[in-house]
Amino acid sequence: MFTQRLWQKVQPLWESYLTHPFVKGIGEGTLAQDKFIHYMKQDYIYLIEYSRVFALGAAKANDLKTMTTFANLLHGTMNFEMDLHREYAAQFGIATQELEETKPSATMTSYTNYMLSQSQLGGVAHVIAAVLACAWSYNWIGKQLATWPGATEHAFYGNWVRMYASPEFSALAEETMQMMNTIAKHQPEHELAKLEEIFVNTCQYEYMFWDMAEHKSMWPLPVIL
Amino acid sequence: MFTQRLWQKVQPLWESYLTHPFVKGIGEGTLAQDKFIHYMKQDYIYLIEYSRVFALGAAKANDLKTMTTFANLLHGTMNFEMDLHREYAAQFGIATQELEETKPSATMTSYTNYMLSQSQLGGVAHVIAAVLACAWSYNWIGKQLATWPGATEHAFYGNWVRMYASPEFSALAEETMQMMNTIAKHQPEHELAKLEEIFVNTCQYEYMFWDMAEHKSMWPLPVIL
Amino acid sequence: MFTQRLWQKVQPLWESYLTHPFVKGIGEGTLAQDKFIHYMKQDYIYLIEYSRVFALGAAKANDLKTMTTFANLLHGTMNFEMDLHREYAAQFGIATQELEETKPSATMTSYTNYMLSQSQLGGVAHVIAAVLACAWSYNWIGKQLATWPGATEHAFYGNWVRMYASPEFSALAEETMQMMNTIAKHQPEHELAKLEEIFVNTCQYEYMFWDMAEHKSMWPLPVIL
Amino acid sequence: MFTQRLWQKVQPLWESYLTHPFVKGIGEGTLAQDKFIHYMKQDYIYLIEYSRVFALGAAKANDLKTMTTFANLLHGTMNFEMDLHREYAAQFGIATQELEETKPSATMTSYTNYMLSQSQLGGVAHVIAAVLACAWSYNWIGKQLATWPGATEHAFYGNWVRMYASPEFSALAEETMQMMNTIAKHQPEHELAKLEEIFVNTCQYEYMFWDMAEHKSMWPLPVIL
Repeated sequence: MFTQRLWQKVQPLWESYLTHPFVKGIGEGTLAQDKFIHYMKQDYIYLIEYSRVFALGAAKANDLKTMTTFANLLHGTMNFEMDLHREYAAQFGIATQELEETKPSATMTSYTNYMLSQSQLGGVAHVIAAVLACAWSYNWIGKQLATWPGATEHAFYGNWVRMYASPEFSALAEETMQMMNTIAKHQPEHELAKLEEIFVNTCQYEYMFWDMAEHKSMWPLPVIL
Repeated sequence: MFTQRLWQKVQPLWESYLTHPFVKGIGEGTLAQDKFIHYMKQDYIYLIEYSRVFALGAAKANDLKTMTTFANLLHGTMNFEMDLHREYAAQFGIATQELEETKPSATMTSYTNYMLSQSQLGGVAHVIAAVLACAWSYNWIGKQLATWPGATEHAFYGNWVRMYASPEFSALAEETMQMMNTIAKHQPEHELAKLEEIFVNTCQYEYMFWDMAEHKSMWPLPVIL
Repeated sequence: MFTQRLWQKVQPLWESYLTHPFVKGIGEGTLAQDKFIHYMKQDYIYLIEYSRVFALGAAKANDLKTMTTFANLLHGTMNFEMDLHREYAAQFGIATQELEETKPSATMTSYTNYMLSQSQLGGVAHVIAAVLACAWSYNWIGKQLATWPGATEHAFYGNWVRMYASPEFSALAEETMQMMNTIAKHQPEHELAKLEEIFVNTCQYEYMFWDMAEHKSMWPLPVIL
Repeated sequence: MFTQRLWQKVQPLWESYLTHPFVKGIGEGTLAQDKFIHYMKQDYIYLIEYSRVFALGAAKANDLKTMTTFANLLHGTMNFEMDLHREYAAQFGIATQELEETKPSATMTSYTNYMLSQSQLGGVAHVIAAVLACAWSYNWIGKQLATWPGATEHAFYGNWVRMYASPEFSALAEETMQMMNTIAKHQPEHELAKLEEIFVNTCQYEYMFWDMAEHKSMWPLPVIL
C-alpha cells in the first residue's frame, strides 16, 4: 500500500503536530480563544480553496467513480461543511460576514496555491496526493486527541475534536487514502517519488498552518490589500 | 445584456437547428430510432465531459456564489441528470453498461475538448461562455418543439421535448445566461469578442452534433480504439 | 519501444494518408493550387496553436532536459518555422497579413483544442503524446513522397516534400519519439492506453486536416466571426 | 498607467527591501558568503519554476506578439540566464551539479507555486501580473544599489548589482511593465483588483525570499525528501 510508504516517511513530522502548542492547546483545552478564532477564520477561507482542488480532481479524473467522488466532496464541502464551520464560528461570536471578509495569510495562501499549482501541472494522481495530507492528518490528530482526558467534552474545543475523530470524517479520510492507493498501483518509481514529494510538502504546510494560528501571523510586511 | 448581443449573432444558426432532419425528426416524431440511439449514447458520454467543464468553473470562480453554482451543476449532473439519461435509454432497450462503453465520436470529442481547452486557457468567463450554448439552445429548441403539434406527447420523443422545455431546465438555462451577463459587464471589447467567439464556435459544434447523430457518424478512418 | 506499439496500431491509418487525394496530389504534383493555399493558411494558424502545446510541455516538464527541449521547439517555431511558412506562402502570392487574418476552420479548431485540452488535463506525458502524430507523420509522409518520381523537384510542392523529408525535420521527429519512449517506460497499462488514445485520435485529426484542405472546408454553418 | 497604481500601492514594501539585512549586505558588500550561497542555490531552482510561468504566458497569450515575447523570455532564461547563474556560482566555488541538486526551501516552493497556480487559474493577464514583481523589483533594487558607494565594484557582489542595474535587464523589466499596462487597459475594476492582489502578494514573497536567504532557512520541520 502506497499510504504505508507515506506513513513511514512522515510519522516523525506528524508526531510533532501533537507537541505543537496550538494542537496541544486544543487537546488540553488550554488554547487562548483569540488564537483559535484566527485559526477558524483562516480555515474557513482555506476550505474554499481546498474545494477548488476537489473541483480539479473532478475535471481531471480518469474514470466515472473518481469523478463522482470528487464531485460529491466538492458539493458536500460547499453546501454542508462550510455551514458547520459557520455555525461553529458563531459559538465564538464570529458572524458569517466576518468569516467571509477574512484576509488570507501568507501560510494559507502558500499552502492552497501549492495544492492548486501541483494539481493543475499534473494529472489526477497529483490532485489526490495534494488533498490527502489535510484529510488524513486531521482525522489522525482528531483520533489521537480524542484519547486525551476531557478533550472531547471541552466546552469550546470538544466539538472540533469530535468532528475530526467522527466516523463520518474517518470515512472521508479512508476514501481519500483508497483513491491514493488505487492510483499509485503499478506507477513507476519516479512518479511515486513525485506523489511522495507533494504529500510531504503538504505535511510541512500543515505544520506551518498550526504555527500561523499559534502566532496569529499574516504576512511579513504590512497587509495592504 | 451580453446575451442579447449573442442572440443577434447566432439567431440564423439556431433557426437552422430546427430545419435539421434530426431535430425536425424529433419534433415531428418521424425520426428513425437507430439514429436517436446513436445520439443518446454520444450524449451520455458528452454529459461526462460537459461536467468536467462545470468542475473547471468551480475551480476558477472569482466568488463563492459562482463557485457554488458550478459545484451544484456538477453534482446535479453526476448524480441526477445522468440517472435520467440511463432511465430514458432503458426505454430504448439500451443498458447502462452499453451506455458506458460508448466509443466517443469525432464530433463528441471535438466539441467537449474545445470547451475544456478554452476553459483551461482562460479564466472563469471562458468557462461560462463554453457551457452556455448547450444549456441555452437545448432549452430554446425544447420550447420551440413543444409548440409543434403532438411533439410533447410522442411515445418516444415526447419525453425529450418535455424535459428540455420544462421549467426546471429553463431555470438552469436562465442561471447560465445570468452568469454570462454578470461577468460580461464592463469587460473590454477584445474580451467580449473572445467570449463571443467561444459561444459562436460551440453553436457550430451543436449543429455538428445533430449532424453526427443524423448520420450515425464516428470518425473518418476506422475506429481502432 | 512504445513508438513501435503505436506504429503497429496506426500503420493502416497512415497508409490511407498516402492515398488521400490531397497528399497524393502533392506527391504527384497535380494538386490544384487553391486547395494548397487553403491548406497553407490553415496550417499557419495551426502552427501557432501547436506552439502553445510546446509551451505547455515546458510548463509541465518533470526535468530540465525535457523543459529545455520544449522551450527550444517553441522558440524555433515562433521565430524560424513561421518565417519559413511566410516565405513559402509568398511564393503562392499570399502576403503575411493575409496569413495572419486566416479564419480558423472547424477541423483546425478541433484538432488544436484537442491537443491543448488533453495536455492541460494530464501531465507532460500527455503533452508529448499530443504533439507526436504531427511531427512523426509529416516526416513519414515527406520521406515516402520523396521517393515518388519528381516529387522533390516539383516547382510548387517540391519545397514542401523536401522540408518534411529533410534531416533537420527528421531529427525533430526523432527527438519527439525519444521523449515519448523515455516517458512511457515503466508506465502502467492504463496510462499507456491513455497515451495511445491521444496518439490515435491525433492521427484521425491529421486525416481530417487533409480532408479539410481537399474540400477547402470551414464550418458546417456560415462563418459569422 | 496601471503600473503607476501598482507602484503607489507597493512603494513602502519596496523601500523595506533596501533596509533588509540581506539586500543591504549586498549593497554595502558586508554580506556573509554562506548566506549568498544559500540564496544563489535557491535562486537557481527558482529560475526554473519562473520559466514555467513564462511558458504558461506563451500558452495563454491572446496575440502573437505577447506569445513571442513569452517564448523568447523562456528560451533566453533556459539557454542564457541559467548559464550566467552557473558561471557566477562557480566564482563562489559551487559546481553546476550542486546547483541542480538544491533542495527547494519552503519560501521558494511557496512563491513559485503561487505564481504557477494563479497563472493557471486565470488568463494571460494573471501570468503577466505574476511575473512582474520579480523582474521590476530586481531592476529597481539593482539601480538603487548601483548608486551606493562601491556597490558595483565589489569583488563578489558587484557582479550581481551590475547585472540587475544593466540596460539589458532594465529593458526586460520595461517590457514586462508594458505588457502589464497594455493588458490592464479598459479592464473592469474587479479584474484590476485581482491583478493588484497577485502583484502585491508576489511583492510579499520577494521579501520572504530575502528573509529566507538571510536566515538560510528551509522548512519548519526536518527536510525528509
